[in-house]
Amino acid sequence: MRYTKLFGKTTHGELKNATFSSHQLLIKAGFIRESTAGRYYFLPLGWRVHEKIRAILKDEMDSVGAQEMITPILHPIELWKETRRTESVGFELMSVEDRSGAEFVLGGTAEEMFVDLVRRFTISYKDLPFTVYQFSTKFRDELRARGGLLRVREFVMKDGYSFDRDADAFQQTYETFAALYTRAFARLGLDAHKVEADNGYIGGEFCHEYIVESEVGESRYFESADGTYSAHEDIARFQRTPINLDEAMKPFEIIAQPEWVKTMQDNEKHYGLPSARFLKNVVYRHVTTDEIIIATIRGDLEVNKTKLEQVLGAVGQLVDATDADLARIGTQSGWVHSWGHTGARYIGDLSLTTVRNFIGGQKEIDTDSINVNYGRDFTCERLADIAMAREGDLAENGQLLREKRGIEVGNIFQLGYHYASKMAGAVYVDRDGKEKPFYMGCYGIGLGRTMAAIVEKYHDAKGILWPEAVAPYQVHLISLANAARAEFVYHQLRASGIDVLWDDRADATAGVKFTDADLIGIPVRLVVSERNKDMIEWKRRDSNTPELLSLDAAMNRLGKA
Amino acid sequence: MRYTKLFGKTTHGELKNATFSSHQLLIKAGFIRESTAGRYYFLPLGWRVHEKIRAILKDEMDSVGAQEMITPILHPIELWKETRRTESVGFELMSVEDRSGAEFVLGGTAEEMFVDLVRRFTISYKDLPFTVYQFSTKFRDELRARGGLLRVREFVMKDGYSFDRDADAFQQTYETFAALYTRAFARLGLDAHKVEADNGYIGGEFCHEYIVESEVGESRYFESADGTYSAHEDIARFQRTPINLDEAMKPFEIIAQPEWVKTMQDNEKHYGLPSARFLKNVVYRHVTTDEIIIATIRGDLEVNKTKLEQVLGAVGQLVDATDADLARIGTQSGWVHSWGHTGARYIGDLSLTTVRNFIGGQKEIDTDSINVNYGRDFTCERLADIAMAREGDLAENGQLLREKRGIEVGNIFQLGYHYASKMAGAVYVDRDGKEKPFYMGCYGIGLGRTMAAIVEKYHDAKGILWPEAVAPYQVHLISLANAARAEFVYHQLRASGIDVLWDDRADATAGVKFTDADLIGIPVRLVVSERNKDMIEWKRRDSNTPELLSLDAAMNRLGKA
Repeated sequence: MRYTKLFGKTTHGELKNATFSSHQLLIKAGFIRESTAGRYYFLPLGWRVHEKIRAILKDEMDSVGAQEMITPILHPIELWKETRRTESVGFELMSVEDRSGAEFVLGGTAEEMFVDLVRRFTISYKDLPFTVYQFSTKFRDELRARGGLLRVREFVMKDGYSFDRDADAFQQTYETFAALYTRAFARLGLDAHKVEADNGYIGGEFCHEYIVESEVGESRYFESADGTYSAHEDIARFQRTPINLDEAMKPFEIIAQPEWVKTMQDNEKHYGLPSARFLKNVVYRHVTTDEIIIATIRGDLEVNKTKLEQVLGAVGQLVDATDADLARIGTQSGWVHSWGHTGARYIGDLSLTTVRNFIGGQKEIDTDSINVNYGRDFTCERLADIAMAREGDLAENGQLLREKRGIEVGNIFQLGYHYASKMAGAVYVDRDGKEKPFYMGCYGIGLGRTMAAIVEKYHDAKGILWPEAVAPYQVHLISLANAARAEFVYHQLRASGIDVLWDDRADATAGVKFTDADLIGIPVRLVVSERNKDMIEWKRRDSNTPELLSLDAAMNRLGKA
Repeated sequence: MRYTKLFGKTTHGELKNATFSSHQLLIKAGFIRESTAGRYYFLPLGWRVHEKIRAILKDEMDSVGAQEMITPILHPIELWKETRRTESVGFELMSVEDRSGAEFVLGGTAEEMFVDLVRRFTISYKDLPFTVYQFSTKFRDELRARGGLLRVREFVMKDGYSFDRDADAFQQTYETFAALYTRAFARLGLDAHKVEADNGYIGGEFCHEYIVESEVGESRYFESADGTYSAHEDIARFQRTPINLDEAMKPFEIIAQPEWVKTMQDNEKHYGLPSARFLKNVVYRHVTTDEIIIATIRGDLEVNKTKLEQVLGAVGQLVDATDADLARIGTQSGWVHSWGHTGARYIGDLSLTTVRNFIGGQKEIDTDSINVNYGRDFTCERLADIAMAREGDLAENGQLLREKRGIEVGNIFQLGYHYASKMAGAVYVDRDGKEKPFYMGCYGIGLGRTMAAIVEKYHDAKGILWPEAVAPYQVHLISLANAARAEFVYHQLRASGIDVLWDDRADATAGVKFTDADLIGIPVRLVVSERNKDMIEWKRRDSNTPELLSLDAAMNRLGKA
């Protein structure tokens, strides 16, 4: 490709509203342009990278026997009603009516579509397992788009769906895709951590996000110091280490307490004790049942709403209680008790058993309770893991937990019977002749976000440094004067099957060309100039040391003699 | 691929509501399934064909320097308002609102999107010409979907857009794509006729459809017997051969006429003369200006509304007049005069000068005019080509016109300044330093319809006969018993890079396997059986003569020794 003919040239100067490197660089280097917020054009350079990512993913998916196909983008809304997903994810869903009044969802993921297709066939246990997948445009009506390709409203996703006989059979399928994902991201130059994640549908152990460590990522997770445990903050488990269990239980008392003691900080100041010695309550309302839930927890910990929802089997159903909700159970903000409010359900964190003689739990205007002991003075409906892990907590294996941030580039997911049980006829005929629902999994990768993650990892102050596997071209050829020689080199390279971007501008200085080459980030830069005569200057983008080589030697290095 | 693992098996038995061969066969052979009317799943077999078509088109587009990229599917409606396309094509357009109330069009074509992108760059005359293209999903809210993939509501289109300095420069670009289309369709096994078509925007000579002759096609066109002229019915030109110009003009008269004479048939019966001797009027209303247009034409011809709209510069603006419209000009249905209605504009067809002494033109209850001569007794605002050609008419080159039907698989289109002039800033900087609008063209191919056209051409009573270039697999391997030998052959073929579908079913008879192979239509069938021992039965799908070959010989024939 001649740079003079390339559509989508580089631009220079800092971009406003582009705080992340990948956002800045992909725009400045001429890979993408925003259409509307969160919806991007991929320019020819950018699309070449996107398609290389696609080819690698396709290669990996095909290698395990997954079969590519395509579903329509417009999903009949009736299917989403069958699984009641119109209720649970409605807020991100876009829908459209056709001229006859039929309503469609713009596909965000395609579980219903694939199940609807599969149930039209008579599937025998002998046909299982199988996995179908597609690369298709997905839509998310995100409240806020951010950071270029990091969080968008329209993107190409590789989404795969596996169909198995049962949970046992599924386990092997799941492991196949887990290994595939690690392999695929490695080919893309990414060290994607396999992180346990929340499986809203089922819980259980088969749900992982693949996260590339990055300061600009939105995903927070915890990893044990030995690296053997890695989990998303939503579900990270940790030991509740005893605070003062060696202390003797003292008699429960209601004592006077100054009116100014309201917050946890006030308590710490007044009693001269750390927050871990106090009781804390956080109140939620269940949007469907209208129940009031009081989560009771040790004062130094925070309630993890995702865990609490899992404990209650109320995924996506809890919202913060309002003043009106508190009034319903006869209290108000700051005065919530750890027991005794009629009409509320109490769920306690495991940490409630790590402290002797809690302070708090029954605050009134100028009194509170002290020497409160779980089991003796109060109990909850249930003690469970409902707390957020912290940097420095101990993992269950005894290792220190480290907090990390990263970009979620993919996920693999146990669906189990969730969809098949809701969609009539989603069954196969088992060996015993009986119809049984499919046991399913799903496997997603966002291509644009993966591309952004690559740039976040591979860039410097001058621009991008594409890994070879996804570089838009293998060679960036620069000609300084000596156009005839450059053209010869260009044709020689192309004749050898090497993808070359040739900066053939006659009116650009060497400086401009070098700056643009660094910005665009093609792995190898070749310079043809008068000074170099018949030799060619070879420089890798990730090196500062140019070398002079003959054309043959350069082509040899490129692996194409 | 093992057939037992393939998702999407064959089905048998006639399908209701599938009148076309491509519709029947693509479903029965397991290539596609309908989701909702006009929206299709492509199953793994079907997607392989689709992607082979894509690869061939991409190869051809890239070979002329066109650059692949992608635009979002959701187009901000503001862009469509800039070009006022929301008014002209609104009825097929689907639109959707996001949660913030922003409105988007689901892309049907992408002229506005590409122009909006290009105008953000400073483009010099030196950067021109360039062509960008994409493969992306398009949406059409068609009133009726029909015939499987022949007319759908959602499909992948290859749409390309060229940017040139001016009409002269554009001509060469246009010719490049015209040649490319012929070449690309030939590679796909299709003899696509390049047919002049209506260019709603500009008129002029640069607008062609590529039509594959087929009885099931919706496109009607005319071709001269010598093949040098080929035009869509909307625009096909033809000679108006004189009917009776040797006759002398007689005096204009109003004569009595029985009340039962109402239709053209009544006239022919009453006067004993052919319809060509009568005047006929067809009335339209302009939806924007509300004008009444009377098209006056020789009685044996039909008015071609597309031509009439072009003549009036009123593309997509004419509708049939209602009784109320006729009342406005003081008449009613059946009593329209060829002159004299106040408030109507008269446009006459060229055929009005081919007849002496027309009958009709001023019908009342029991009278009409005779011996009516154009120029002497009445004139129209304008005489123009507003008639529909017919089989047997003479082309302008004197050759007989033949009427043909076919499937429109692609089109190439002069856009000229149409979009650039409406969208502010869609300019390049010319050599003289002045900003000038782009001169554009566009180039579309529907991939699914192309696939259907291939099946319409390549099938027999037993199933599909895929051309090699687009076949889902090169070889259909059938094993009859002797599974170990078949597995060896399967691996040998695959190791040589040959794509094989292996019917490895243990529980299917030879008859079932042969029937499925014929239905699926892979070009070469290989049979491994006990009877054949170490030899392999080779049969092409398009031949009835099997041969026994050694594996080496078979692989040699497949071009992979």
